[in-house]
Amino acid sequence: MKKIDGGVTAAKGFYAGAAQAGIKYANRNDMAVVYCEKPCATAATFTTNVVKAAPVKWDIQLLKEHSEIQAVVLNSGSANACTGDEGDRNNEKMAELTAAAFKINKNNVFTASTGVIGKNLPMDAIERGVSLLAQNTGNDREHANLAARAIMTTDTYEKECAVEFDINGTTVHIGGMSKGSGMIHPNMATMLGVITTDADIEAELLQAAVSAAVKVSFNMISVDRDTSTNDSLMVMASGLAGNKKIIEKNSEYDIFYDALEYVLKTLAKKMAADGEGASKLIEVKVLNAPDYEMAAKLSKSVITSPLVKAAVFGNDANWGRIMCALGYAGVNFNADKVDIYYEGRDELDGEINSYGRLQLVHNGIDADYSEETATKILSSKVFTVTADMNSGAACATAWGCDLTYDYVKINADYRS
Amino acid sequence: MKKIDGGVTAAKGFYAGAAQAGIKYANRNDMAVVYCEKPCATAATFTTNVVKAAPVKWDIQLLKEHSEIQAVVLNSGSANACTGDEGDRNNEKMAELTAAAFKINKNNVFTASTGVIGKNLPMDAIERGVSLLAQNTGNDREHANLAARAIMTTDTYEKECAVEFDINGTTVHIGGMSKGSGMIHPNMATMLGVITTDADIEAELLQAAVSAAVKVSFNMISVDRDTSTNDSLMVMASGLAGNKKIIEKNSEYDIFYDALEYVLKTLAKKMAADGEGASKLIEVKVLNAPDYEMAAKLSKSVITSPLVKAAVFGNDANWGRIMCALGYAGVNFNADKVDIYYEGRDELDGEINSYGRLQLVHNGIDADYSEETATKILSSKVFTVTADMNSGAACATAWGCDLTYDYVKINADYRS
Repeated sequence: MKKIDGGVTAAKGFYAGAAQAGIKYANRNDMAVVYCEKPCATAATFTTNVVKAAPVKWDIQLLKEHSEIQAVVLNSGSANACTGDEGDRNNEKMAELTAAAFKINKNNVFTASTGVIGKNLPMDAIERGVSLLAQNTGNDREHANLAARAIMTTDTYEKECAVEFDINGTTVHIGGMSKGSGMIHPNMATMLGVITTDADIEAELLQAAVSAAVKVSFNMISVDRDTSTNDSLMVMASGLAGNKKIIEKNSEYDIFYDALEYVLKTLAKKMAADGEGASKLIEVKVLNAPDYEMAAKLSKSVITSPLVKAAVFGNDANWGRIMCALGYAGVNFNADKVDIYYEGRDELDGEINSYGRLQLVHNGIDADYSEETATKILSSKVFTVTADMNSGAACATAWGCDLTYDYVKINADYRS
Repeated sequence: MKKIDGGVTAAKGFYAGAAQAGIKYANRNDMAVVYCEKPCATAATFTTNVVKAAPVKWDIQLLKEHSEIQAVVLNSGSANACTGDEGDRNNEKMAELTAAAFKINKNNVFTASTGVIGKNLPMDAIERGVSLLAQNTGNDREHANLAARAIMTTDTYEKECAVEFDINGTTVHIGGMSKGSGMIHPNMATMLGVITTDADIEAELLQAAVSAAVKVSFNMISVDRDTSTNDSLMVMASGLAGNKKIIEKNSEYDIFYDALEYVLKTLAKKMAADGEGASKLIEVKVLNAPDYEMAAKLSKSVITSPLVKAAVFGNDANWGRIMCALGYAGVNFNADKVDIYYEGRDELDGEINSYGRLQLVHNGIDADYSEETATKILSSKVFTVTADMNSGAACATAWGCDLTYDYVKINADYRS
């Protein structure tokens, strides 16, 4: 598998586009489309929030009906959540407009919205946006990037990733884009994400792969413990790579799964690093827990602690807050066995930087470490806490970001 | 029942004191004692955090042995948590020193510590502190207040409350103090709290009353979703009021319970209002849910949402975040039935202020309210959100505070 420069158009058959509909933001694109030249085997995961946005309800229904999705239309600026029947009608209209523009059936169109909750979609803007989208798609790098930028809200950069790999001599691609910056604590889903692949794979197996990969990627990030009403991850497989169709969990499925997991994890980490107000990415690795569920709970408990996040922002090696957050994770463990280490990286995928790996806690108590080194490690762009529970063999990693003045600033005045 | 000016010395038989031990803070008291002239029927609740501080482990053991507590010794500046065997020895030494100074048995001494996790207690300071405490107790208003101030960490004011009530012609008192400002998300307990009463009540019934009252008071507040390693609420009943001993859940028990619940709720609200960096108290009332557990989960979900807290800080009537937080509470409900109201108060126990009660959401969607009025209500010192689920008869109230720049400031640099 190799990482390539690309996004949602990296796989064969996929086009993307963006348009300036004028929903909320001035002078920027706020609608996007991902379109495939043929209907696709489709898988998706959605928010577990009881309050579901109109597009989420629409997509869940299509997924139930095993609809083969051919286009996803997305808008930023308005979430179309808590908008009642009118919201449902507006969403269906958005699908209809897209279907008409691309000459497909509305039941082959996924919808996705992100932005302020509780306001109706401005349908004149949506109509204008869709007609612009229809004139403005391409299957090149630039159009993929335009789409990735159009779905941003408080994101400070677009999130894209693409890989190329080989299944029995056939070259296969997976590419994707996602957005998300606040209200990030995905649960069985993410914020908005669209993944495309030209792999030929049965829809049921695609769903199995997506569900498994989401569990260790998007479901392991948290910016603020707020699970949104609009979380949606949508995956479309065109089958145009021409590989022998994957119809069982064999070695070919495994190759596909590994590539998919890599793409989802990369997008998830980019989202965590760009959490609202974030100055750095925090990675929490829990090692040697009794089982995966426990390891995942422990790592997510640390990544969501506001006190840990604020201490990391302040470069304060306050490991007591990490022990405390492990302690209230809802998992029983022997605190006297816990070891804690810090390490830093200068880039998302980089090597440990020159400050090395520092042990702060040994057997649950202070390991008499250098505060100076700890502070240096904490000031890295990517900061990793490793908690070794020494009571099993299961591991899990969660990603998040520090809690900064800017998080408060952004969210004290998001609507204006 | 009437509220009186007082704290832990309001009830007959109780003395309090404070001392400047020099543990961490300069020029202020950092140790306190509450002492009774006789051993007391004792009840307590402690943190559910798996990582328990040395004093918590000590107190739990004494409570198991049905020890009749006669003194509580408390320090601020160091939590004595994650300090291993040495921490346990230091804590026992603190109990021993206190026992010797007050000429009682060390097994009748509760201990409590609050402050930085992971550092050993400076025992020379503790020794100095205890000997000063022994020379410096009184059963008057001033000594209660000195004790309440000595246990503060990032608290900006002391939390005290006292009431006087009548049981069959006998005057009975309950008074208390507590501290807590960050790492506040009590679970079966609170931060540090000491409650004294001269009621004559069996220890088992006292525990029943305390456990029930904690559930609707301290367990319903949250500053930052961080459950501390040191949460302890300790209640001592001297029996010196001379009422007929309460030995069953009769009407006299009910009178006692109501007074106790009032004291705990008052202290809990004061803690929430003084959450780290808080500019206002937020109260979340959930009405007409199917059962109490659901109502409590829903109200706690809203009170802990960083996005709701930041919007309240910014006086932004962003009700979508409230719907969203209800939605991920882990409770199933019909979003189309939810009504949301805002109201403000100028004081903790005051009446609704002149901006009145404003409906923002009707049947799950925008009620077309005045943004101007909503902003005025939001700027009140006490801001109340009411979410009427319209699907049952159970109610619950939770308290918290807004998320401000000062929360980040305080916690990015707490240790220095």
